[in-house]
Amino acid sequence: MSIFDSRLLKSGETKERRERVLPILSAALDAVDPINAVKRHMSLEDNELHIGHRVYDLNKYRNIYVIGGGKAGGSMAKAIEEILGHHVTAGLINTKYGHRADTKTVRINEAGHPIPDAAGMRGASQMVDIAADATEGDLVICLISGGGSALMTLPVEGISVADMEALTSALLRCGAAINEINSIRKHLSQIKGGNLSRLAYPAEVVSLILSDVVGSPLDVIASGPTVPDSSSFAQAHGIVERYGLLDELPSSIVQHLSQGKEGTIPETPKEGDAVFSKTYNLVIASNEVAARAAIAKAKNLGFDTLLLSTFVEGEAREVAQAFSAIAKEIVHSGQPVSRPACVVAGGETTVTIRGEGKGGRNQELALAAAIQIEGLDEALIVALATDGTDGPTDAAGAIADGSTLRRAGAKGLSAREHLANNDSYHFFEPLGDLIITGPTNTNVNDLTFVLVF
Amino acid sequence: MSIFDSRLLKSGETKERRERVLPILSAALDAVDPINAVKRHMSLEDNELHIGHRVYDLNKYRNIYVIGGGKAGGSMAKAIEEILGHHVTAGLINTKYGHRADTKTVRINEAGHPIPDAAGMRGASQMVDIAADATEGDLVICLISGGGSALMTLPVEGISVADMEALTSALLRCGAAINEINSIRKHLSQIKGGNLSRLAYPAEVVSLILSDVVGSPLDVIASGPTVPDSSSFAQAHGIVERYGLLDELPSSIVQHLSQGKEGTIPETPKEGDAVFSKTYNLVIASNEVAARAAIAKAKNLGFDTLLLSTFVEGEAREVAQAFSAIAKEIVHSGQPVSRPACVVAGGETTVTIRGEGKGGRNQELALAAAIQIEGLDEALIVALATDGTDGPTDAAGAIADGSTLRRAGAKGLSAREHLANNDSYHFFEPLGDLIITGPTNTNVNDLTFVLVF
Repeated sequence: MSIFDSRLLKSGETKERRERVLPILSAALDAVDPINAVKRHMSLEDNELHIGHRVYDLNKYRNIYVIGGGKAGGSMAKAIEEILGHHVTAGLINTKYGHRADTKTVRINEAGHPIPDAAGMRGASQMVDIAADATEGDLVICLISGGGSALMTLPVEGISVADMEALTSALLRCGAAINEINSIRKHLSQIKGGNLSRLAYPAEVVSLILSDVVGSPLDVIASGPTVPDSSSFAQAHGIVERYGLLDELPSSIVQHLSQGKEGTIPETPKEGDAVFSKTYNLVIASNEVAARAAIAKAKNLGFDTLLLSTFVEGEAREVAQAFSAIAKEIVHSGQPVSRPACVVAGGETTVTIRGEGKGGRNQELALAAAIQIEGLDEALIVALATDGTDGPTDAAGAIADGSTLRRAGAKGLSAREHLANNDSYHFFEPLGDLIITGPTNTNVNDLTFVLVF
Repeated sequence: MSIFDSRLLKSGETKERRERVLPILSAALDAVDPINAVKRHMSLEDNELHIGHRVYDLNKYRNIYVIGGGKAGGSMAKAIEEILGHHVTAGLINTKYGHRADTKTVRINEAGHPIPDAAGMRGASQMVDIAADATEGDLVICLISGGGSALMTLPVEGISVADMEALTSALLRCGAAINEINSIRKHLSQIKGGNLSRLAYPAEVVSLILSDVVGSPLDVIASGPTVPDSSSFAQAHGIVERYGLLDELPSSIVQHLSQGKEGTIPETPKEGDAVFSKTYNLVIASNEVAARAAIAKAKNLGFDTLLLSTFVEGEAREVAQAFSAIAKEIVHSGQPVSRPACVVAGGETTVTIRGEGKGGRNQELALAAAIQIEGLDEALIVALATDGTDGPTDAAGAIADGSTLRRAGAKGLSAREHLANNDSYHFFEPLGDLIITGPTNTNVNDLTFVLVF
């Protein structure tokens, strides 16, 4: 609760309501804090390491390595060290510049994100060495979080990062779907598409995953370094062929895909391969985890609750209409939940930029909602980026309620004009209705809260 | 159920599912059928007329008049005659051309819609005469349904329909809000803004309302002929002034608003006026009534149900994303309702036309949903226009399911291309997945059904 700007607590009735809302937001963020998330899923008792519902007898393991990539990687590694202490043999995590953490054994390597750089490649290469050196009787703990895809970039020998960039832009230009792009990438990477598990085999692999992908599909998060790949070299090659890119792409890439198709290079590991009998993937934090924590807290505070969906996507201002429609129905008929009601939804919206203002998808959602619920004094809608950074702003989101437009009008602010100009930040800022948390060190996308008192 | 095209029942598993869905749609439409709706809210026993929760002792009434306007007016009047028989003294209903009904005493006057014409004006003028002639001991039953605003158009003396059209286009051009436009219109009408109740006073007035406005605000439906007006002449004049239209508008209009502002002309009747002690407004059919009937039927068929909202608005393809997100969550976690699940939502979406295809908002919603739930074999999403006419097509809507894109692909149809071209009709037509009901004679906007088996 203390993470929130005290200006959010207005006087009077609004204050009382916000004092009930902010703990719900806090509960959601606490549940997906990387350190909390690791510790909730991992504990050491009498040399038995409990991870999820599995138990690893440390008497049987010679080395424990910690590798991985992502913006929460430093915090996660620190939590691992706090649990495992001297049991950690060595490790290396790639994280984004500025995301250093105070670890003892595991080296935190800061690197480029979202564009991979040489530092990241060096780190990824060392991770590959660690995994390849690990063997029977070793345990490799892989920590994956938001940004993991860029931060675990290491193309196969002979293919440069520039080649990979040329590939991606050519595919995007042809209108290739993201899963098509990913299946090609997996076949050009030393790490992705299950390759990390294969490198580590026969060592045991445990991947602790903090998911920033809607729906948490394991093969998509960081392109699934420890997850069976369902696509083949033949398919990857076929996609390139279908888009007529065989002549246009760097020859290193086309050659690799051709060799793979012909069987000269081994396939990415598949479902059922022995490799995965030694791999355990565990999502320790996700949008769903945050949403469920919010629901639990809201229940505890006396709200009638509804977890609507953790798959919400679409244009922010339109999604706002859907949430507002639910708020209106709750006020009107006590459906789909009765008052005091708390509906929680998660996902990630998008904003089609038409104006020149400052904002983010969550602030824009809140602004559009404020217009929809104008005068609906019982209603309050909060939109929150769980990483604490909504768009290119220092806000995590904003709070809209039935009084927002009235209060804005008193300050000469037009909600419709600010919305038309994608200028949600400068609408909420003077009202003191921005949610400012600072970076939360985690990212499980966005949450929206619809409350009716 | 027989109202649906038998082609909707595919073979195999899909058939079984659709056989469970179509009765839910039928239940919704049955509940808002104008004749059913009147009869469910009105009955005659021992000369006691029960309307909603009120009772009118017919021994005390000399005359019963039936007036009103709207596309369902003919059917509603017919139902009234079937209940009241010879008790009906006289009446006149304005309805749209082609919406005649077989009544005995009440005259059904066909007229222009959505643009009012001379026939409509003559009818409205006769309604006003009937209301004005009614007095203590008379009962005026007013039947209001979709199209009622255009079909009950009668400006005050000295203002022509052309003047009113000039007013509306000038206001729209200035970006005036619809409630601003309506408050001016109410002050220029002999019928709207409660004026019909005042004309009939001291006769008793009962308005039976079939709502085609999202949320069913009584003062908005047909501009509230029997509902207190919350706006004033001063406000109406102020709006015209604020938009700088005092010099531009027809002088008849400006003069009338000025006189009203100065108090020379009486205000529209307000909340608390004696007039309304003799008026009873009853919504007999609405989106909510349809949605609740669907929910009841679905429960009866063993579904876990959720009435999400009857206030859904927004761009059809975006709204589809929200519904699809709920379908995905139900499949993923059994939230917010468990399987077999039936989520019902109502409202009215819009379509921003960018292509040149054929379709309607419901068909477009279903098309966008089909893309979202591709491969989600447990899910089915139906979008339905309750009037049976979705956009300029002969379809009421369409059915999307996890197999839609696969079946379309087999026929060489691209969902994305059809969506980009607003061509939902030609996407679903070859699949046999259009819902064809023919005109239903009612209109309570749209319903969407999200089913997960």
